[in-house]
Amino acid sequence: MKQPPEKVDHIGIAVKSIHEHLPFYENVLGLELLQTETVESQKVKVAFIAVGATKLELLEPLADDSPIAAFIDKRGEGIHHVALGVTNIEKRLEEIKQDGIKTINDKPYKGAGGADVAFLHPSSAGRVLYELCERK
Amino acid sequence: MKQPPEKVDHIGIAVKSIHEHLPFYENVLGLELLQTETVESQKVKVAFIAVGATKLELLEPLADDSPIAAFIDKRGEGIHHVALGVTNIEKRLEEIKQDGIKTINDKPYKGAGGADVAFLHPSSAGRVLYELCERK
Repeated sequence: MKQPPEKVDHIGIAVKSIHEHLPFYENVLGLELLQTETVESQKVKVAFIAVGATKLELLEPLADDSPIAAFIDKRGEGIHHVALGVTNIEKRLEEIKQDGIKTINDKPYKGAGGADVAFLHPSSAGRVLYELCERK
Repeated sequence: MKQPPEKVDHIGIAVKSIHEHLPFYENVLGLELLQTETVESQKVKVAFIAVGATKLELLEPLADDSPIAAFIDKRGEGIHHVALGVTNIEKRLEEIKQDGIKTINDKPYKGAGGADVAFLHPSSAGRVLYELCERK
């Protein structure tokens, strides 16, 4: 039997400047900035903000050839992906592929915050960019 | 002192057909459909799917002049808004307006699932369509 995702781990939001948007989250909403880090492979700076069990993940491109820069060029700033928290991500990803869902990543890789992550392709996954995310 | 949002209550996703996308959520991901309803004021059919403490809210337009139909025409299917669960929504909305944030709704109104809701304007709220949502 399949084990469904346990929560929305985080919501990825593409922004031109984390610095510009933090005052809204911290001062207006009163939310807490947990940490910032750089993910070199994606050429992004990441800021995690806690909202209960879910995090808002602000993604700022650090180079013009960052995937996030391409997203902002095409769609503007805004929500980029929704990450579903799972256990046993390797098994879940294989099951999903066997169900005929296209994936962007064939295997999980290390994402921000040290999580193992893999993206599904929106064309066969509800027209949303869903990420599977496991924190061990 | 401000009381920050307690959780991501739900993520609103604009779709042309709930029926078309439910098998992905139910059969592939193994998630549970909680309920469906019609919100006449927005001319939408709504399906709530549980992921831990958060819900995915599929929004299907029931008429060409539904706000969700306009969104799909302009942006395509995909994530429409993020709802932040709050208590005392009237007070929170007033505080947010006093902080200089533009809102789409001046006062909360009854949304899907009987919640009191109000939307902030993305231009001054992180470039995301955030909803405040209180379930009493």
